[in-house]
Amino acid sequence: MMIQSSLLAAARGERPADVLLQGGMVANVLTAELERVDVAVAGGRVVGLGTDYEASHVVDVSGRFLLPGYLDAHVHIESSLATPPEFARAVVPRGTTTVVCDPHEIANVHGLAGIDYMLRSSQGLPLSVLVMASSCVPATPMGTAGAQLDAGDLTSLLAHDRVLGLAEVMNFPGVIGGHPDVLAKIDAFRGRPIDGHAPGVRGAPLNAYIVGGPLSDHECTTPEEALEKLRRGLWLFLREATNARNLRDLVPTLTPQNRRRVALCTDDRQPPDLLDEGGIDHMLRVLVESGIEPLEALRLATLNPAEYFGLRDRGAIAPGRRADVVVVSDLHSFAAEEVFVGGEPVARSGEALPWNLPAPPTPPPPSMQVPWDRVDLSIPARGDRVRVIRVVPDQIVTDAILTPPRVVDGLVAADPVRDLMKIAVIERHTGSGRVGLGLVHGMGLTEGALASTVAHDHHNLIVVGADDRSMLSAARAVASGGGGLAVARGDAILSALPLPVGGLMSDRPMEAVRLGLEAVIEAARGLGSDLHDPFMALSFLGLEVIPTLKITDRGLVDVDAFQLVDLWV
Amino acid sequence: MMIQSSLLAAARGERPADVLLQGGMVANVLTAELERVDVAVAGGRVVGLGTDYEASHVVDVSGRFLLPGYLDAHVHIESSLATPPEFARAVVPRGTTTVVCDPHEIANVHGLAGIDYMLRSSQGLPLSVLVMASSCVPATPMGTAGAQLDAGDLTSLLAHDRVLGLAEVMNFPGVIGGHPDVLAKIDAFRGRPIDGHAPGVRGAPLNAYIVGGPLSDHECTTPEEALEKLRRGLWLFLREATNARNLRDLVPTLTPQNRRRVALCTDDRQPPDLLDEGGIDHMLRVLVESGIEPLEALRLATLNPAEYFGLRDRGAIAPGRRADVVVVSDLHSFAAEEVFVGGEPVARSGEALPWNLPAPPTPPPPSMQVPWDRVDLSIPARGDRVRVIRVVPDQIVTDAILTPPRVVDGLVAADPVRDLMKIAVIERHTGSGRVGLGLVHGMGLTEGALASTVAHDHHNLIVVGADDRSMLSAARAVASGGGGLAVARGDAILSALPLPVGGLMSDRPMEAVRLGLEAVIEAARGLGSDLHDPFMALSFLGLEVIPTLKITDRGLVDVDAFQLVDLWV
Repeated sequence: MMIQSSLLAAARGERPADVLLQGGMVANVLTAELERVDVAVAGGRVVGLGTDYEASHVVDVSGRFLLPGYLDAHVHIESSLATPPEFARAVVPRGTTTVVCDPHEIANVHGLAGIDYMLRSSQGLPLSVLVMASSCVPATPMGTAGAQLDAGDLTSLLAHDRVLGLAEVMNFPGVIGGHPDVLAKIDAFRGRPIDGHAPGVRGAPLNAYIVGGPLSDHECTTPEEALEKLRRGLWLFLREATNARNLRDLVPTLTPQNRRRVALCTDDRQPPDLLDEGGIDHMLRVLVESGIEPLEALRLATLNPAEYFGLRDRGAIAPGRRADVVVVSDLHSFAAEEVFVGGEPVARSGEALPWNLPAPPTPPPPSMQVPWDRVDLSIPARGDRVRVIRVVPDQIVTDAILTPPRVVDGLVAADPVRDLMKIAVIERHTGSGRVGLGLVHGMGLTEGALASTVAHDHHNLIVVGADDRSMLSAARAVASGGGGLAVARGDAILSALPLPVGGLMSDRPMEAVRLGLEAVIEAARGLGSDLHDPFMALSFLGLEVIPTLKITDRGLVDVDAFQLVDLWV
Repeated sequence: MMIQSSLLAAARGERPADVLLQGGMVANVLTAELERVDVAVAGGRVVGLGTDYEASHVVDVSGRFLLPGYLDAHVHIESSLATPPEFARAVVPRGTTTVVCDPHEIANVHGLAGIDYMLRSSQGLPLSVLVMASSCVPATPMGTAGAQLDAGDLTSLLAHDRVLGLAEVMNFPGVIGGHPDVLAKIDAFRGRPIDGHAPGVRGAPLNAYIVGGPLSDHECTTPEEALEKLRRGLWLFLREATNARNLRDLVPTLTPQNRRRVALCTDDRQPPDLLDEGGIDHMLRVLVESGIEPLEALRLATLNPAEYFGLRDRGAIAPGRRADVVVVSDLHSFAAEEVFVGGEPVARSGEALPWNLPAPPTPPPPSMQVPWDRVDLSIPARGDRVRVIRVVPDQIVTDAILTPPRVVDGLVAADPVRDLMKIAVIERHTGSGRVGLGLVHGMGLTEGALASTVAHDHHNLIVVGADDRSMLSAARAVASGGGGLAVARGDAILSALPLPVGGLMSDRPMEAVRLGLEAVIEAARGLGSDLHDPFMALSFLGLEVIPTLKITDRGLVDVDAFQLVDLWV
């Protein structure tokens, strides 16, 4: 974009700026200082800081602090269960003006068409939605996703000016071991940001992972792991997700010397967290409570991620950069009183102002090909003991236990007395009719069934229940809504939250999604589950890259052995 | 470049590395810590840090410090008066393993062919010579350069993998004022590093300059100016050139919070400084003497410039990065005992080891088109007073004085009694026969003449002297060598240093160049000049972008008015 001469004239002070934010204290993250200067804006950019500028529109921000809009370094918008505009309405009023997203969930359902939908539906928002090309579609060949993206598919995305680099390379064994298809994807993005994902990887394997190419990591759980990764050259993204809260544990890692290579990310946040607690703003509060200087905390959400991603047009309130500005009255609550994007007011007192958005694009037609007449959830008994997935509360890892199943009329049945439920993964993308079947302990159900198409990462239709009739009711209820969450008992649908966009996202406002989510969770509680969020637990039982025992449409997966295993031992 | 699986195997420790630097303390600039770890190298890259690696070749560095090779963020190699291989032999043994150069001098002589020569002659060196496309060729239309490079010419250079961005945009009035040709050049390099050059520019003009696009500045002379530039988002390159020593003055600018956006550069260094004092290593010594922690000083010469230029393959000793390593025994003298480039030893005890270099390329044929029969240095008297350039010792700015000239037989003559010498700029690139004529005060000559083709930025043949015969002798001596420096008295050539490569660089070793330079300076002293370096002073009398009165082949330039002016008032 050629700089217009009108911007230069405004910068020189020879013509009035469009907007002047007057009287505030600028949080200068470039030098970590507070500066009493006005901010002159023209053409959506900061054109000058000083005290002599004039503008056609003056905003009095006397006595308040002006912060650069926050950047979220890594987020899956789909985890908000809402579309990008609704996600934006949740995060922008709290000060986040840029997110770097990995549209990994919808890509596993709809492939490039899904990523294209995310790009189109985030066009023209007050939130800058920047995209990393999803590197692991599908996660593994042990389950059936809706698409498969190779290096060529991923590089085709670079034609879009909001695509920055390669999203989290979760296949860390593939990088470390030098699998050619994984290296080909990395190689195609060489010179651009390449995000990593290497939970617990340390020592020589970590060295190899870094040699392979990823540049960041957001999966650290201990200060020791985090410090080793910083020392070896990975950027550290501190994460505070709904299902993985690592921030407080990792604060002790930070030193004045190493925190320049640290950024903040939310990864996966559900509506209640986004609406009640916030996102990056919440993380800033936690950091300041933990003793980090406010301007230093702010750098982790502004300048640092901007530098990591090579975004020279944001990350600070400075000439030439976007006029994305958050107005607050103090540097500990970070309560956003006003948010400006490109110099335009977009939110006030924590609420979005009316936005004039383009018409939302039509999402891809549902990936919901299930030949119901061939779907059979029965498990004929053919042995003494079965492998059972054991849910670990509030974690995405599972255990495996071996136990004799309850058998009724030659078929394996759920056993509520022992909290053993049947679980099924019904392939929904290709119409294969394939169903993976098993048993799970720890869901806490005593009757009925839960079904969901939010089932990382393949997002097939996952169902858990006490009897096949309830399971099929719940599954068919979900399918009829184009995807979503449902709770059934017998033929009765107790509650349902349709997620017609990819089977992952609602087309409703986030407040409505939140109420729907709370309703299905409440219905699940009525069936006996006492998990904090039984649908969240369910959604990770299919993720065959997280230990120990998981299930896909192809059957049980021993993740440590990285292979499919039989139900029967 | 696809990472080879052999590197990954070495990183995993499953096959021996090529080289192991064992027993040393690694200066980890990523976290600003010293770490007792071995460094395993394969394929020229660091593949691992740890204490369990093995290698086919082990180097014992016990008790010593391993530093990342230094980066010089901005240098004109031509100012060393030597070709890139000879420049490399001077700087690599002191620890500089990467330079980002602006081939601005030879570009003003030979255009793209000159830049191409610099690229070819630096191919295969142990020094990484990275290139910024010269933005100001020519500096202005008020003088005649050997070439003119527009935005299209400059972007054609991006096809070369060692060309990074746009070199110092010296035409700061053009940026601030929004001149379309200047903005077109910047726009062509948007998203890449764009170096700035804005001496003394502050306030609203500085805001406009930054809105225009440049990202760094190396022309600050006061801490106040430097801090303002950092606050507004420019990177600060601290400079310690032969003719501009700003480092000590600017150290007070640095704080732990702002110095992450600071790098070191040498800009222009002549052989005596390079050989006796050093370059970046000298600057590290000064910083540490000034109280900066050694690891923090080191960041300014390693990680910081690597981040500014987006060079993820260097700037730290870390997996995946180039194994460019400097071995020292202490962190205050920074005396390089060993230098490794790509894991290979290239220097020891401050001396280059024998390098197996490719045959040097042939430089472009001399740009030396002077129709001597039409060159006339006589100045017919046609007034009472003339404008005289006054040399300010050890500065590149000049003053202007008005005085009656000495006139002999109707012609203006030099007047040694008043230290008024004649000065001529003989256009050498196009054969126009054009000569700019004037008078200069302060060269200190009493007889004879000095001539040089090192005459920033047009690099025409500049001559100063007491009589036309000496001036023509010196000028023709220079021309006959394809360019260079010469001292003459009457018909006698007292000393000459041929610089046949572009009229800027010798084809001899730097030690020989140094002796030649000292000889011509000594000869100039014999003619009465007591300037520290009369050729250096002479070389800037033609630079029509530095105040106040300068001279080109088109005549006298009033730099403040930015226009040609008559000799006679």
